[in-house]
Amino acid sequence: MKITILGNNSAIPAHGRNPSAQIAEIKDFLLLIDCGEGTQMQMIKYGIKRSKIRYILISHLHGDHYFGLIGLINSFGLLGRTDPLHIYCPELLPGIIQAQLDASSAQLPYELHFHIIADTGERRVLVDDAVCRISCFPVDHRIATHGFVITEKAKARKLDLEACRRYEIPQYFYKRLQAGEDYEQKDGTIVKNEWVTLPGLEDKVYAYCADTRHTLSFVEDVAAADLIYHESTYLEADADLAILRYHSTAAQAAAFAEAAGVKRLLLGHYSSRYKEIEAFEAEAKRRFPNTVASFEGMEIRV
Amino acid sequence: MKITILGNNSAIPAHGRNPSAQIAEIKDFLLLIDCGEGTQMQMIKYGIKRSKIRYILISHLHGDHYFGLIGLINSFGLLGRTDPLHIYCPELLPGIIQAQLDASSAQLPYELHFHIIADTGERRVLVDDAVCRISCFPVDHRIATHGFVITEKAKARKLDLEACRRYEIPQYFYKRLQAGEDYEQKDGTIVKNEWVTLPGLEDKVYAYCADTRHTLSFVEDVAAADLIYHESTYLEADADLAILRYHSTAAQAAAFAEAAGVKRLLLGHYSSRYKEIEAFEAEAKRRFPNTVASFEGMEIRV
Repeated sequence: MKITILGNNSAIPAHGRNPSAQIAEIKDFLLLIDCGEGTQMQMIKYGIKRSKIRYILISHLHGDHYFGLIGLINSFGLLGRTDPLHIYCPELLPGIIQAQLDASSAQLPYELHFHIIADTGERRVLVDDAVCRISCFPVDHRIATHGFVITEKAKARKLDLEACRRYEIPQYFYKRLQAGEDYEQKDGTIVKNEWVTLPGLEDKVYAYCADTRHTLSFVEDVAAADLIYHESTYLEADADLAILRYHSTAAQAAAFAEAAGVKRLLLGHYSSRYKEIEAFEAEAKRRFPNTVASFEGMEIRV
Repeated sequence: MKITILGNNSAIPAHGRNPSAQIAEIKDFLLLIDCGEGTQMQMIKYGIKRSKIRYILISHLHGDHYFGLIGLINSFGLLGRTDPLHIYCPELLPGIIQAQLDASSAQLPYELHFHIIADTGERRVLVDDAVCRISCFPVDHRIATHGFVITEKAKARKLDLEACRRYEIPQYFYKRLQAGEDYEQKDGTIVKNEWVTLPGLEDKVYAYCADTRHTLSFVEDVAAADLIYHESTYLEADADLAILRYHSTAAQAAAFAEAAGVKRLLLGHYSSRYKEIEAFEAEAKRRFPNTVASFEGMEIRV
């Protein structure tokens, strides 16, 4: 899985930084997480193949996380998209989008499916297909907001073809071996899966913690993550603003990552009050060394 | 009056070109004409003082002309604007904007006034204050669309102070002299205005013809213009597309400018099918030599 940062500024565009948007690339399709104004321009700038976007996740309805969505939906139509598009979002978003499509008498040439995440807070699986699983969890922000866990499923176990032949396993059973099953021979002898297969790759887990006040209420949701994106709107010197505005500091993001026991921390959603962002990474690293500060255009492998 | 082009591409952002948005600078305030996605970023890029925007004109509700408006309105709030903002727009826009403000529970710290231009087509004065007059006129597009005429009023006539004293004109009457009145002395003698004043500057007139199919139905509305912006979505080789999609070619824009008898023509709203835009100016100039093709960041004095 590869994450590309298209925008990581909070509230208003400033200092050349754009509002929130990220791409997760999983095998042959893309997933867009939040979609601030100008996201479609950022996609062109960073060479993102828009047509490969299958799922869009919108964490909450502050403008810096979704004002670019209508433009993208509209452009998909003008570009002749035919693949269905699935959007996971808060309750009020479909009405906002539909009102704008109606105003222009636009007929989209593709199916647009909205899947509502209730404002009361939900903790459930949104997508579970052959290659990925996406789930949501509530965070603590001024309006209803959800984070997302994206799991790229491990490749199946690898067949040891010579061993399979030696144990006379029929080819029709190979798929079940890859899925981890043992094989029972005609005489009742069990052939253990690990005798005839080799390990595949492990699941890769990315968690996007959206906009949130410092809280440990969702550490369990993201505990398995190889990488989490946790907002750091402020530095610790402005911790009072973080509380007031339902945001976190870089030090709080680090404390969260440590408590959750994740492998790596990615910072972002910087306030416009900071022209330079070097201090964020330094502040977080004092508590959680495996931290990196996101920058626009950054690509990071999970 | 100075026009700054912030975006001049049609439909979708492409080739580094942004959707429609222009600034007209009149004395100490700004007027924004259309507001495609990313307009607020373009304002930062081209050094536009956002806080000086007093009026916003939205020609029609195709996304490339207004998707950036909610972001700008929202940012004005976050930046602490207190000056009222006046938006002249189609009927459905206030509902679209309000739904998005409601979704984020945003309370704007300034007054936002919407002034509706009826979808049935209106031809009337929208603003008439000390320094400018703005009026609208219907054009011929797929959905209800209006163009705008913006007049920067001539400065008042200049006083010839020595002559004023010679004719013993009291100071309280100076303002009326500047407005062009004659003065009547106590004995009934008339002091002609031109004996005691000198000419001021002339009105400057800019017309924005929005998105339109080729038509001469609004030549009279823009006849007084020093400069008109007329869309040229296509080149003449694609004239069939222009008809089909309710747009114009560069040659048609030139024919319109000639018929209207305006002084200068500014082209724009180029289709994404053209990577290079040099051909537009050349095509229009064959019919109307005083043509210039707009480019992003261009500043042009009216």
